[in-house]
Amino acid sequence: MVHRLIVQYGQPTDPAAFDRHYREVHVGLAQAIPGLQRFTIGHPRSMDPSTPAPYLVAELDFESADALAKGMGSEAGAAAGADVATFATGGASMASYDVDDVSPAG
Amino acid sequence: MVHRLIVQYGQPTDPAAFDRHYREVHVGLAQAIPGLQRFTIGHPRSMDPSTPAPYLVAELDFESADALAKGMGSEAGAAAGADVATFATGGASMASYDVDDVSPAG
Repeated sequence: MVHRLIVQYGQPTDPAAFDRHYREVHVGLAQAIPGLQRFTIGHPRSMDPSTPAPYLVAELDFESADALAKGMGSEAGAAAGADVATFATGGASMASYDVDDVSPAG
Repeated sequence: MVHRLIVQYGQPTDPAAFDRHYREVHVGLAQAIPGLQRFTIGHPRSMDPSTPAPYLVAELDFESADALAKGMGSEAGAAAGADVATFATGGASMASYDVDDVSPAG
């Protein structure tokens, strides 16, 4: 069972500063969240120019919705959450879901 | 190396019909895309009521951007792509990115 938090950041006013802060500060803060099992990031490119992609997508996997809530409610979770406001000049949306694995067999 | 296609569906006019078609038809079409290594889906819930979450998020992992392009350009990729228009009454956005794994150590 995997419960995934997906964070999507809008285009920042200063992408280089955003990337620097994200790498040098935010990744470490997020890595410290208790219960975090997997953490991936990427800069998506839209496959349809009429719908712009978010600037950065981050996915944080936990064992369950409970584990996510506990992690976000911890001191480390609060610190990572508070940090977002310091660099997410293009906004950030957060949503979470139970991951249903429908990978092809073999 | 993982290259991820992320597909985000907007709220459909008939969620039950959307889910039925997605499960019974679309998952199988997508599973047949050559080079698809991992395929996960979920119905996200927003953590901030002011920014609604997409209705469904699908992630399709390939070995590289090239493998994704080849898969989407295949007959099976074209069939899965054409199917989207038949059920995505709330629209769909597609973006892809190289996955950077920054999981915590241990």
